[in-house]
Amino acid sequence: MAVAPTRPSVTVEVRVALKPGVLDAEAENIEKSLSLLGVRPAPKVRTARVYDLVFEGLSEEDARARAQEAADRLLANPVIHTVRVVAQPD
Amino acid sequence: MAVAPTRPSVTVEVRVALKPGVLDAEAENIEKSLSLLGVRPAPKVRTARVYDLVFEGLSEEDARARAQEAADRLLANPVIHTVRVVAQPD
Repeated sequence: MAVAPTRPSVTVEVRVALKPGVLDAEAENIEKSLSLLGVRPAPKVRTARVYDLVFEGLSEEDARARAQEAADRLLANPVIHTVRVVAQPD
Repeated sequence: MAVAPTRPSVTVEVRVALKPGVLDAEAENIEKSLSLLGVRPAPKVRTARVYDLVFEGLSEEDARARAQEAADRLLANPVIHTVRVVAQPD
């Protein structure tokens, strides 16, 4: 009996950040704290949340589509978030 | 009077993730939620927090060193976190 070739796992990175103009309170607090800690020059800070989704047995294209679905339905709010979805074959 | 050449800004990405073996409750809840939402096959999930630090007037090497300092002193807890620091010249 022929054995189907096994696909490697595919990791898709979903990066959820706040849209420009949306208050990033955590970033502002980090800027203040770094300044108080004496890190000079204090940098501008932007924060983002990253979700690595590891799919087994899917093509890269299918894994990317599932990850986009996960972002649309659960991980991000299109009113305030930008989303970047990048597939990274293992 | 000679004008000093202006350096471009340097963005350093600090990626803070939980060490293997540390409970990632958010990731577990996302896995359950995706399964309940019917995303098949449900992926394994890992979460991370990303801080983009934008430095003005520093070399890439200096910016990377400042970002590492920020991670060590403020952004990460070495007991539970792994940190990756990557400079990305603009």
